[in-house]
Amino acid sequence: MPFSTRLKVRFGDADPAGLVYYPVIFHYFHIALEEFFAECCGISYDRLIADERLGFPTVKSEAEFFVPLVYGDEVEITVSVSKIGTSSAVFEYRASRVSDHALCARATNIHVAMNMDTRRATPTPDKYREAFERQSGE
Amino acid sequence: MPFSTRLKVRFGDADPAGLVYYPVIFHYFHIALEEFFAECCGISYDRLIADERLGFPTVKSEAEFFVPLVYGDEVEITVSVSKIGTSSAVFEYRASRVSDHALCARATNIHVAMNMDTRRATPTPDKYREAFERQSGE
Amino acid sequence: MPFSTRLKVRFGDADPAGLVYYPVIFHYFHIALEEFFAECCGISYDRLIADERLGFPTVKSEAEFFVPLVYGDEVEITVSVSKIGTSSAVFEYRASRVSDHALCARATNIHVAMNMDTRRATPTPDKYREAFERQSGE
Amino acid sequence: MPFSTRLKVRFGDADPAGLVYYPVIFHYFHIALEEFFAECCGISYDRLIADERLGFPTVKSEAEFFVPLVYGDEVEITVSVSKIGTSSAVFEYRASRVSDHALCARATNIHVAMNMDTRRATPTPDKYREAFERQSGE
Repeated sequence: MPFSTRLKVRFGDADPAGLVYYPVIFHYFHIALEEFFAECCGISYDRLIADERLGFPTVKSEAEFFVPLVYGDEVEITVSVSKIGTSSAVFEYRASRVSDHALCARATNIHVAMNMDTRRATPTPDKYREAFERQSGE
Repeated sequence: MPFSTRLKVRFGDADPAGLVYYPVIFHYFHIALEEFFAECCGISYDRLIADERLGFPTVKSEAEFFVPLVYGDEVEITVSVSKIGTSSAVFEYRASRVSDHALCARATNIHVAMNMDTRRATPTPDKYREAFERQSGE
Repeated sequence: MPFSTRLKVRFGDADPAGLVYYPVIFHYFHIALEEFFAECCGISYDRLIADERLGFPTVKSEAEFFVPLVYGDEVEITVSVSKIGTSSAVFEYRASRVSDHALCARATNIHVAMNMDTRRATPTPDKYREAFERQSGE
Repeated sequence: MPFSTRLKVRFGDADPAGLVYYPVIFHYFHIALEEFFAECCGISYDRLIADERLGFPTVKSEAEFFVPLVYGDEVEITVSVSKIGTSSAVFEYRASRVSDHALCARATNIHVAMNMDTRRATPTPDKYREAFERQSGE
């Protein structure tokens, strides 16, 4: 089972068309990544940055938006890892509407392990590579 | 010459790592789309929605982030149209740092003409197709 | 006991200084208002707007920020109603850090019942006045 | 003449009610503060933080929202300083709609000079006190 987390579409997330503004959906995917670290990697993303000076910024994203999310929707976001490199990993995100399981959006993002002090790529520490592998058996 | 517009990275746009949070870069691209409509299509995006009940939501996005934008950067965003379908169009966005012209991010987005009342795709009106064509000769 | 809800400070909520950008704290208060409606008023804020064409925009806010919230904090927000007028109500919000109960921010906001079609003030329907009264006995 | 700057209400700034979500108006005031530093204080706010490790977070805000801003509006924001203390200053912000000069919102914010390393209040350096004084003669 891939990791999943739920969130609610908030008033401030929707645009004048009544739909969730698409940049906000990337924000949702990042929230899911933060929950993924806390639940699957044994460290919260904030401690990862503060204590280990390590982050996983997105260097590439490929996303599709199938069904508009609207204010009031509850969303389930699944996160899994489809490829693991030395200092990068490919994450798969899927956002579904809880009420009817409709797949609303998906993204495939390449995240790179970055030393927050040098702002350069660094090999992913083994403990996180192993955590990513545990979430890669979709 | 493709259409371009400039904006400044604001304090609230950058994250605790000091870099522009990547969902905000999609927000920048949308701001550039709004300016594109006002400058190249003869109508502001807000009047398009309000008066013609027409919008151009993003249904697919493929983006790369090459160089981090940081608080204080000024950004130039170019917008051009690489493909025009009946009710969709492919827009190319490039975000460069003004100080040294470094290409920081790019995106290829498919926008679909949507009737804002029915929330269904609709053929792009000729006047906007023609405006898109004028911006497609990169 | 006043109504309360919890949320987590997200990566995108904090600014380059590492602190939650103060406009985001007002966003947190609005999220708490949305939860307040769902839990205490028998209707979600989105259905209130969609079905009853009623909203409660803020017309006045007086806020203090005592202790910075930082990325990784969990926040508890309490909501209570300190005054109820014909078409307005005064809401009290308090944001505390869960880890040590430190009061980080508070706001006193005047919300006005607004008909979303006419965008004019309207008397607060009795059922919501009664719900507000139930939350006013601090 | 108080300092002023203009900005446009963006699609992503407005909520499902079609109005600018009120936390975004505080974001506008912060943008105006950033422009105020660049124009009136001889340093951009980002350099102030990066080079002098000095920021001016908001510790108190009192705001009123008179007329809703809507998507498509252009806004003029004036900034002046009404009181200058040792390590704090009271800033006055006014947001007017450019089309008809309607005063839409105002805020009185207390900003405190903060050392970004210690996160403690620090006396405002003389050069900034003097700049604030030049903008205080409303």
